[in-house]
Amino acid sequence: MKQEIASGAQTQVRDLSKLFYPESIAVIGASADESPRSDGWLGRLQRFGYRGRLYPINPRATQIMGLRSYPSIADVPARVDYAIVAVRAELVAGVLRECVSKDVGVVHVFSGDFADSGNEQGQLLQHELTAIIRGSGTRLIGPNCLGVYCPSGGLTFNHGFSKQAGSLAIVSQTGAALIRILPLAHARGIYCSKVVSYGNAADIDSPELLEYLAHDADTRCVLAYIEGVADGRRFLDAVAKCNREKPVVILKGGLTGGGARAIMSHTATLVGTGHVWKAFFKKTNAIAIDSFDEALNQVVALQFLRPPAGPNVGIVGLGGGLGVVTADICEKAGLHVPALSADTVRSLQTLKGLAVGRGVRNPVEMGLGKTGLFKGFADGLRMLAADAKVYLVMVQLYPEGYVQHWSGSRQMEEAIDILIDTVKSLQKPVATVIGLGHDMESMALTLNAHQRCGASGLAVFATPEAAAQAAFKVIEYYANQKS
Amino acid sequence: MKQEIASGAQTQVRDLSKLFYPESIAVIGASADESPRSDGWLGRLQRFGYRGRLYPINPRATQIMGLRSYPSIADVPARVDYAIVAVRAELVAGVLRECVSKDVGVVHVFSGDFADSGNEQGQLLQHELTAIIRGSGTRLIGPNCLGVYCPSGGLTFNHGFSKQAGSLAIVSQTGAALIRILPLAHARGIYCSKVVSYGNAADIDSPELLEYLAHDADTRCVLAYIEGVADGRRFLDAVAKCNREKPVVILKGGLTGGGARAIMSHTATLVGTGHVWKAFFKKTNAIAIDSFDEALNQVVALQFLRPPAGPNVGIVGLGGGLGVVTADICEKAGLHVPALSADTVRSLQTLKGLAVGRGVRNPVEMGLGKTGLFKGFADGLRMLAADAKVYLVMVQLYPEGYVQHWSGSRQMEEAIDILIDTVKSLQKPVATVIGLGHDMESMALTLNAHQRCGASGLAVFATPEAAAQAAFKVIEYYANQKS
Repeated sequence: MKQEIASGAQTQVRDLSKLFYPESIAVIGASADESPRSDGWLGRLQRFGYRGRLYPINPRATQIMGLRSYPSIADVPARVDYAIVAVRAELVAGVLRECVSKDVGVVHVFSGDFADSGNEQGQLLQHELTAIIRGSGTRLIGPNCLGVYCPSGGLTFNHGFSKQAGSLAIVSQTGAALIRILPLAHARGIYCSKVVSYGNAADIDSPELLEYLAHDADTRCVLAYIEGVADGRRFLDAVAKCNREKPVVILKGGLTGGGARAIMSHTATLVGTGHVWKAFFKKTNAIAIDSFDEALNQVVALQFLRPPAGPNVGIVGLGGGLGVVTADICEKAGLHVPALSADTVRSLQTLKGLAVGRGVRNPVEMGLGKTGLFKGFADGLRMLAADAKVYLVMVQLYPEGYVQHWSGSRQMEEAIDILIDTVKSLQKPVATVIGLGHDMESMALTLNAHQRCGASGLAVFATPEAAAQAAFKVIEYYANQKS
Repeated sequence: MKQEIASGAQTQVRDLSKLFYPESIAVIGASADESPRSDGWLGRLQRFGYRGRLYPINPRATQIMGLRSYPSIADVPARVDYAIVAVRAELVAGVLRECVSKDVGVVHVFSGDFADSGNEQGQLLQHELTAIIRGSGTRLIGPNCLGVYCPSGGLTFNHGFSKQAGSLAIVSQTGAALIRILPLAHARGIYCSKVVSYGNAADIDSPELLEYLAHDADTRCVLAYIEGVADGRRFLDAVAKCNREKPVVILKGGLTGGGARAIMSHTATLVGTGHVWKAFFKKTNAIAIDSFDEALNQVVALQFLRPPAGPNVGIVGLGGGLGVVTADICEKAGLHVPALSADTVRSLQTLKGLAVGRGVRNPVEMGLGKTGLFKGFADGLRMLAADAKVYLVMVQLYPEGYVQHWSGSRQMEEAIDILIDTVKSLQKPVATVIGLGHDMESMALTLNAHQRCGASGLAVFATPEAAAQAAFKVIEYYANQKS
């Protein structure tokens, strides 16, 4: 079966534009009582501002949400580019046959209980789906997936996603995780070009999506969550090719025994061994990550950090133990924390209040004080960034420790103003760390600061670990690209 | 110099109770215009509820905050157990001589610019301090430190710290980091017995503190942030001894070149090489961690997770890719995600809505749905925990993804009620993961859930990585204790 899927995909390399920009969408299995307040496919698309024609398909309704409803897709009196199928698994094959007869461009099978069921019946049902579309002009996405989010095409599978388009594309065998991470990404300034949750990959699989995204002008970075691929060779070639154009970040699920077993009850795709994947990452120079949280940090770093010329980092923030541990964290992540040049030290020593008695070292101790940001903060940042040994600057602010001293959040707003202005004026990349708070008051400061930094194009993180690890992988990626 | 400090400490093994329970405190360098609203030492202690006698020392004041002020400590007409010194570095030696004459029990030198200055003058000044107390009945804490937080003794160095006493002791060469992490710890149900920020360690050093804490009945777990120690042998013995009584978690600063350089401008203590510290951790079975964030997670796990009998974890939460990646994360951290026994699978399959068509696997897919917690959640948790192959349960909830569906926070409150009741009733340890939110609404749910879980004695974490890594180290610790 896998072989057939693979060869099916290979013979069908064609334009996927209907996947992202359909001019008409049918929702097969639209609920008769769907309302704008309920969370159904029609309501989601309408609220999200989809501008094409929408056709509800339901044999027991004539109108749904003010739209004319049809008993079957065969009855729709116009061309249908895209069909969303949300009916019970055993009904999907019949519906798919009707879609093929109607020459629907792409059918998105939301329904699960195919190969993901883990039983033979489900596998046979999925096999039937691929057989139905073979040789037809109809492509299949899924089954068992949430489908497409493409702000510029007006498509979404969740109304918590932003209408703002960006440059991150995501190719994912899971959808629920995207519902969790995309709002977190938006809050840090990351928006998407095209996102595809493709589930069991019975037809359209990751290689074809990556081949498309390699040439998609709207996409500058690709994140992939992969459980398995039917055609490993094509996947490797697609990743290598895409990765030459733009960075590809891959979270490979199932690299451990426990994870591989879990995949059997998710998408049931071919997993591959850790050994094979290690060679894969070496060969493709794709960026390997281990979790969805790391995925967020990595795309923030790729989007907002200009590639540092090397691993030397100059650290700014609270000194003392926090500074020592931050230096350790950076070096453990692969960065280097160099001693500053004598010129930089002399410049920094001119900053009043910075270096009373103490030698100025890296980390440079300056940050938020009891009355707001350290006066020489912007100057200090410029001096540090001007050091020839420093290729990357890491700034740390821990607002919550100072909430108790502050008159409201004014000082924090001012500090963020200064930070944003200064970082934007520097030639060198700056990773900004703003720590999380312990209560609503401090957390509000942090979330607001993260949002403001993200919206202004600053790479913002919640911990120095996250910043250092993501920055190191950016450096490694660009170094390997050159070699 | 270091040799002298070491031998000084060794000859002065005596009761440290005055460090934590002084009956009278003098504040030398109390600001004449200190008010209850300003953030000075006197105000902090008064607000915190210190019940002993307080003596402001200031040559230019007769009364501060309603307290009789004295020109010098020599003028105080009663015994002084504890003196806080907050004057310029060059004045400290004179003040310390007066304290020795007055036979003050412990002198806490808050002032910096001693060995931490990185210059010879500072080193000489610090050397002078140790010389002054040698052979006297006066002990010195610091210089360059924040001193003591001991809720049961009414002492604090920050008014953001809780008055509630707990069982975590902290021994730290940094103070600023504690101001950051203690409120985060309180928010997760962790409270302290005794916390000491001891800075440059000119007299009282970590070994002596650990020896004391080993026998302190109020302390059940010790966290140490160490930059260096003067007497490595005594430190090793103290850690090994303390660690036999209660777990000792150590964040060693300066294990990298960059971190070691940073220590020179912090406490300037002897750092030691990575090689030596690796052997140290092997020999003592102390728990090594890499950051202050990890410190929090580790103490939460030690305080609230009953020691699991082995590394097998049963995972509950959203399935799909999040489940796969969680299984991978657990196994990468050293845990094992076993297949569940046939009996457990059969029991779980009886839960309505849980296993429609899909095989029940580990992770078990159940959690928060659109209308609150999955109906069979409590039963499912009990069934999973009853599996003989499962020694530890990890529960994941991601409230923020569901905020959009909910009528306020009622469902989350109900879910947490059920979670707390069920976890408390189980014989096996449960690590609870409640993810962070992307905006104030979802973050409020998360913070509230964390606080409620922590207050109810549940081990709560923000990510599966944090939970898995901390849980694995707990398992490893207790396994090594037995062997």
